[in-house]
Amino acid sequence: MLRVGINGFGTIGKRVADAVRAQPDMTVAGVAKRTPDYEAEIARDRGYSLFAAAETTPFTAAGIDVAGQVRQLVAASDVVVDATPAGVGERNRALYEELETPAIYQGGEDASVAPVSFNARANYDEAVGADAVRVVSCNTTGLSRVLAPLEERYGIEKVRATLVRRGGDPSQTGRGPINDTLPDPVSIPSHHAPDVKTVFPELSIDTMGMKVPATLMHTHAINLTLRATPTAEDVRDLLTAEGRLLVIPERLGIDGAGKLKEYTRDAGRPRGDVWENCIWAESLTVEPLSDGRADCYLFQAIHQEADVVPENVDAIRAIAGLADGPESVERTNEALGIGCGLAGIEPDTTAPARDAASDD
Amino acid sequence: MLRVGINGFGTIGKRVADAVRAQPDMTVAGVAKRTPDYEAEIARDRGYSLFAAAETTPFTAAGIDVAGQVRQLVAASDVVVDATPAGVGERNRALYEELETPAIYQGGEDASVAPVSFNARANYDEAVGADAVRVVSCNTTGLSRVLAPLEERYGIEKVRATLVRRGGDPSQTGRGPINDTLPDPVSIPSHHAPDVKTVFPELSIDTMGMKVPATLMHTHAINLTLRATPTAEDVRDLLTAEGRLLVIPERLGIDGAGKLKEYTRDAGRPRGDVWENCIWAESLTVEPLSDGRADCYLFQAIHQEADVVPENVDAIRAIAGLADGPESVERTNEALGIGCGLAGIEPDTTAPARDAASDD
Repeated sequence: MLRVGINGFGTIGKRVADAVRAQPDMTVAGVAKRTPDYEAEIARDRGYSLFAAAETTPFTAAGIDVAGQVRQLVAASDVVVDATPAGVGERNRALYEELETPAIYQGGEDASVAPVSFNARANYDEAVGADAVRVVSCNTTGLSRVLAPLEERYGIEKVRATLVRRGGDPSQTGRGPINDTLPDPVSIPSHHAPDVKTVFPELSIDTMGMKVPATLMHTHAINLTLRATPTAEDVRDLLTAEGRLLVIPERLGIDGAGKLKEYTRDAGRPRGDVWENCIWAESLTVEPLSDGRADCYLFQAIHQEADVVPENVDAIRAIAGLADGPESVERTNEALGIGCGLAGIEPDTTAPARDAASDD
Repeated sequence: MLRVGINGFGTIGKRVADAVRAQPDMTVAGVAKRTPDYEAEIARDRGYSLFAAAETTPFTAAGIDVAGQVRQLVAASDVVVDATPAGVGERNRALYEELETPAIYQGGEDASVAPVSFNARANYDEAVGADAVRVVSCNTTGLSRVLAPLEERYGIEKVRATLVRRGGDPSQTGRGPINDTLPDPVSIPSHHAPDVKTVFPELSIDTMGMKVPATLMHTHAINLTLRATPTAEDVRDLLTAEGRLLVIPERLGIDGAGKLKEYTRDAGRPRGDVWENCIWAESLTVEPLSDGRADCYLFQAIHQEADVVPENVDAIRAIAGLADGPESVERTNEALGIGCGLAGIEPDTTAPARDAASDD
């Protein structure tokens, strides 16, 4: 059993811990936190060994036992997942390197934090045996998952995407905007396009970012100029066969993130998490252009708290050399129940047959 | 003085009435309303002759004098502006035709309501002497204004625009969404692309629509593939020279609709109205493509309650044959103060000289 330490037990860290615990081939060595807040109570209630990321005194004062300092956790781990706030991961890097513990960073870090920026669907093999891996951000993960099969099947001349981002997560009560729509950043491209290129170095992509008064999910309006002229149905079948893409049929009556998350809560998903990209089937549109090219359009919703969680699990397997990509993805999906539990949006078995393991 | 009747005294009608009154060559014959609510009080306080669009009894009961029925207003008007809710204009059409009063409809009506769909910058001449004209919607007006100079100067191969629309106006308290981002419509293109084609029949354009929990303005993320490779500065200068486009310099520190509207309120604009498209200067980006083409990007904010108001005034002049396009636009702009009163975003006089009258 691979021992995985998780440094940071906030939005991502607590989800990664639960996801690691659900896997057959890894275990949670412990989690590290700075403050004895409600999430520390959750760590204790879940039975995770809790390590202090800074001082132990506040935990002792709050009556919460700690197993030691974060340094001890890193030393006792085969792999560490750094789920600290953006920029803190870079500061933790010296510790991981000193203790020679392979580290997984999150997409809030600069790409230079690790030699590989990772998406399980797009470039798993590059992370195998690396010393450090950066799992790209929620938006870049969402883009990478949908771009990979389209690039492989049709070739992509150019991507133009508008990312309408949630202002903050539900728990980030200090964030905005309220009643406004902010170009963010105002300059073009937003940082997402270069970030996608850390996964697809040759891709031509421009992104425009905005922030709106919503907390549940990001919503992407995507245009792709393809080097082929498939039908909208071809594209729908291709995407439906992908394990981490949910193509939402019209009959479900899901008009936005609210109903999507209501659906996953009803289905019993932990925290109502949506690990998959949610693509509206009706939005899949293909418009032939000249020279055998076509403009393809789609809307997708991305759950910013959850979509990188299975990617972190796969990054752990890649860095530890536990499995190849398709095998890891299959194991992660099965352990978490990705692609299951949501009636009516199972992978379409009438779609052109593809090797199940390579679908993800 | 041209006598203008205004049927409907809601968001658009009350603004059109005030704008007509501010013109040197037209007068408000009266306004018609269905209910004696707060906007009826405003009509009375402004001194407009108030006509009942339906029953007179509720007005009498509320102690508000009415000058008669809407039929009398239409008969007494040289031109009528129909500013009733979407779909009601079509039902009023028979009355205007019976009384042979030329009519201006709003963009909520189907394009078939009138022989001409109108934008002052793009196709003023088509409306001259027509029996009926439809002023296109706020979003289509905003798109038409920015597309016209770019099409004329560079040629446009294709437009791809994502329209992040406010959920409702500030007074529309029953609308949503709350805390969600809705693809709306989910299908592509949204109705905006065909609507733009009522003004630019030859244009290749796709639009994706969304709705968000904001009330102040729409925000457009626009990509245009141009048939030329100008610099971003060329495009900025071209757009800055347009009277109804405000290119917002970075130094103003305006990050969204909230600060934009705060600025116009501080400047003393009536109701804080923003009649112009507001284009973020930093967002203007040009990326050369192959074959002498270029991808141009920009963000713009559109005040849905206000941008069609000067267009209605110009449509009145066109339909009545009072002036040619550049003359009407200049008169409207001067009477309302368009392009004035906002320090630092005056038209850039260092830009390539163009005939002032033809700038709009």
